[in-house]
Amino acid sequence: MELLKKRIEEEGRVVGDEILKVDSFLNHQMDIELFQAMGEAFYERFKTHKITKILTVEASGIGIAAIAALYFKVPVVFAKKTKSRNLDAETYTAEVYSFTKQAYYDIQVSKRYLSEDDHILILDDFLANGKAALGLMAIVEQAGATVEGIGIVIEKGFQEGGKLLRERSVHLESLAIIDGFENGKVIFRK
Amino acid sequence: MELLKKRIEEEGRVVGDEILKVDSFLNHQMDIELFQAMGEAFYERFKTHKITKILTVEASGIGIAAIAALYFKVPVVFAKKTKSRNLDAETYTAEVYSFTKQAYYDIQVSKRYLSEDDHILILDDFLANGKAALGLMAIVEQAGATVEGIGIVIEKGFQEGGKLLRERSVHLESLAIIDGFENGKVIFRK
Repeated sequence: MELLKKRIEEEGRVVGDEILKVDSFLNHQMDIELFQAMGEAFYERFKTHKITKILTVEASGIGIAAIAALYFKVPVVFAKKTKSRNLDAETYTAEVYSFTKQAYYDIQVSKRYLSEDDHILILDDFLANGKAALGLMAIVEQAGATVEGIGIVIEKGFQEGGKLLRERSVHLESLAIIDGFENGKVIFRK
Repeated sequence: MELLKKRIEEEGRVVGDEILKVDSFLNHQMDIELFQAMGEAFYERFKTHKITKILTVEASGIGIAAIAALYFKVPVVFAKKTKSRNLDAETYTAEVYSFTKQAYYDIQVSKRYLSEDDHILILDDFLANGKAALGLMAIVEQAGATVEGIGIVIEKGFQEGGKLLRERSVHLESLAIIDGFENGKVIFRK
């Protein structure tokens, strides 16, 4: 998606060998006009699938999923990372390793909001080691629902997540794939 | 807002004396059509203010803020609750007590995304003791920006948050105000 790549080139900040900061438009400040274009792009790529719900994980997936849901006209469910008095006792749970936080944590979805009749589109902002996406897939499987596809805003093509998901023959679409960094610049996959 | 009150009456689950669970449409599963109506309602109530940015706090404020931003045509910034390698070192910070999680935590916004030229609308899903809203106000004040208003989806009128904010003469708008619970039913303020 050219509009997104342009924003990454203009505003992305490369930190070290692995971190790309895009918090001016994606995951701290959110450019909602860009989010609309991304939502439409996801819809174009998944519209032949029957989608009943969008599933994401808090926090930075929520804005993307909410805006994309305008195009799919379905509800969003976001997996929760922390135990809360507000969360039901009966949940689907998966363990996830966070690359940016360098820690393991559980993600959870109340059993009320996923059923075997659901056809799920998983959306998230980043794909790196794939652990969050695999955790969300595990939750969908626990519910007996179907994963129709996974939509990612930025895939770090030099980490193993994309490979792991493509091996499982899930329909994966990334709006931008990054193959690496060179002198602080982003190299996109052609 | 009648549409919202109807949903609370139909789907809200009262737990004990204080907890209202609305996770079927507001803060776990999100009904995006309802969010559009709420975004429009916030716009109607704040449209005479000059708003340059919407500020919320992760996680459940993000969806509401993202959809409301479609009507205000401004970016959203969400305060972060946890230290991440992705967050800038230079942040505005406030300490907040969470009623639902019964713990203190810091909320943070990178100094890049709030400036003294900003006119901020704060949005959040719940107002209970007011600590999150006061923390967000403190962050706006640290930036030298202006709080134009605070928009809340559900205010628990029997807790002190609404009173604390109204005393500070900020323009506060709650789409539904709950005065209490009776036999598991919600009593709305007239």
